[in-house]
Amino acid sequence: MTTKQIVLISRPKGKPAMENFQTNEFELPEIKDTEVLLEAMFFSVDPYMRGRMNDAKSYVPPFEIGKSIAGGAIAKVLKSNSPNFKENDIVIGNLPWQQHCIATENGLTKVDTVIAPASYYLGILGMPGLTAYFGLMHIGKPKAGETVVVSGAAGAVGIVVGQIAKLQGCRVVGIAGSDEKVKLLKEEFCFDEVINYKTSANIKKAIADVCPNAVDIYYDNVGGEISDAVISNINFNARIVLCGQIALYNSTEIPMGPRLQPMLLTRSVLMQGFIVSNYQSQFEEGLSHLSLWLKEGKLKYKETIVNGFEKLPSALMGLFNGDNTGKMIVEV
Amino acid sequence: MTTKQIVLISRPKGKPAMENFQTNEFELPEIKDTEVLLEAMFFSVDPYMRGRMNDAKSYVPPFEIGKSIAGGAIAKVLKSNSPNFKENDIVIGNLPWQQHCIATENGLTKVDTVIAPASYYLGILGMPGLTAYFGLMHIGKPKAGETVVVSGAAGAVGIVVGQIAKLQGCRVVGIAGSDEKVKLLKEEFCFDEVINYKTSANIKKAIADVCPNAVDIYYDNVGGEISDAVISNINFNARIVLCGQIALYNSTEIPMGPRLQPMLLTRSVLMQGFIVSNYQSQFEEGLSHLSLWLKEGKLKYKETIVNGFEKLPSALMGLFNGDNTGKMIVEV
Repeated sequence: MTTKQIVLISRPKGKPAMENFQTNEFELPEIKDTEVLLEAMFFSVDPYMRGRMNDAKSYVPPFEIGKSIAGGAIAKVLKSNSPNFKENDIVIGNLPWQQHCIATENGLTKVDTVIAPASYYLGILGMPGLTAYFGLMHIGKPKAGETVVVSGAAGAVGIVVGQIAKLQGCRVVGIAGSDEKVKLLKEEFCFDEVINYKTSANIKKAIADVCPNAVDIYYDNVGGEISDAVISNINFNARIVLCGQIALYNSTEIPMGPRLQPMLLTRSVLMQGFIVSNYQSQFEEGLSHLSLWLKEGKLKYKETIVNGFEKLPSALMGLFNGDNTGKMIVEV
Repeated sequence: MTTKQIVLISRPKGKPAMENFQTNEFELPEIKDTEVLLEAMFFSVDPYMRGRMNDAKSYVPPFEIGKSIAGGAIAKVLKSNSPNFKENDIVIGNLPWQQHCIATENGLTKVDTVIAPASYYLGILGMPGLTAYFGLMHIGKPKAGETVVVSGAAGAVGIVVGQIAKLQGCRVVGIAGSDEKVKLLKEEFCFDEVINYKTSANIKKAIADVCPNAVDIYYDNVGGEISDAVISNINFNARIVLCGQIALYNSTEIPMGPRLQPMLLTRSVLMQGFIVSNYQSQFEEGLSHLSLWLKEGKLKYKETIVNGFEKLPSALMGLFNGDNTGKMIVEV
């Protein structure tokens, strides 16, 4: 059958642009033994994908030029030569940006659409939810009464971090990039305070004003000057969870900033970088908490769904403009 | 009786200078109940004292203008109104820079000069030794076969860190500031490699050359560009122990440097600032290891002893020029 794919045709310098992507039509062969034919339903677009567009050593290999971009996706089984999957099963896996694809049975997992809508497995019940959970609970180790600051608070991870921190009895301060996001986080997601970094003349002071007892946990999704402002308000024995640095992903030179070590030293602060797969052996623990909180209504969720396979590149680019509130998803 | 004291008369801007200090003579009163009269024997001069010369919030309060500098010291009891101390006892405590002083019994501890020379309690069996031990063992958590890099390797802390890391089966690379120090660390202290940062044209490359499997633990005593070079060679899941930042202590502006968070994030690196008093409840554990290793000859020790009470300011200033090898001590 004929299908469409989106390939990376050049590596972006700075922000990704449409010229870095190309949509091709091509012919899929017949599936072989243990293979399945999938029809894509939802694609996840995530900030970490920007790193894979560079030709640089990291925790995941770079995307190859001339090949499909790939990432988390939900798909429907159209045809199966695997005893593990049957027609109409809904599965999650790391899949190429193709309307249809052939996948081997390994690396695919069935999702239960009775528990939650299929797309949730790309968000709150998937990588971003687990990232929020393990970063906050296993690195941040929140204690009731502590002050937690979350940057990128309205993003897929931040919106979950803030709610889990509230469930732990913390005071939660979010940092986001629009008045709509501020309103949403305060009114719908129970953040104690939210700062709009785009309209705040002095973020350092804005944080100091709403964190009179300093910042005990900083869950960092953005990096750059916002993080400088938070860290200048850091408390003794604080924990800084390095989850994302979206403000720096499009940098073409090594970004410079104030040296943090003297502050981290004199205040006995921990800073820990992590990726969610470090906690793979404990995913079950994380998912059981997230599912339960979701079921009990203690955890709310928000998606920005973009419609159309061809919108994948623009949806990815939109992450760097803060176009999304909650998880950015492309529905095919 | 009449005695001498060294007082801070102005706060340094940048490097401390002689003009910041003044030696005064003054009259000591008679000792009261529970007090002792002490004669100073050895003073410890340490990089952290530079921080106390500023009027800034930190983990210890600033020195007061017009009052004696104070720090770790060993003294002899000349007269005692305390049941806990008698004439000729040798004690350690946080004492003013005075030839003689009156101290209350609290905060003084007798030292056993049979086990080790008195001055060792200011070094390997004191704060610097414990700092080396807890930073490396409790934060760095060395595993046999790992590569440990120590900056300020010939300093009071670094020289102990390197030896403990060797005892754990690690490959140890030191960074120091003279060929004499390099030779000493390799020949006497069994470091595997030592880099002279003053004569190395490209420290980043020099580290890469001697750390082919990257850096698993970086024990940082210096900060600044040396640390940038080490961290650019950091391994996945590495630990960075922030012990000192001597290269930055005399900065008059907030020092700038490359932002580290993207590297710490993608490589799942931990960076932890600490001060030794965080581990106060475990000092006994640390001291028992250090004493045993010292007794067994597994741990060697080195002091730079400066003679003369009046040399205290210049000895302190000398730390920032790397004048010392091992622990800098002023003998009265």
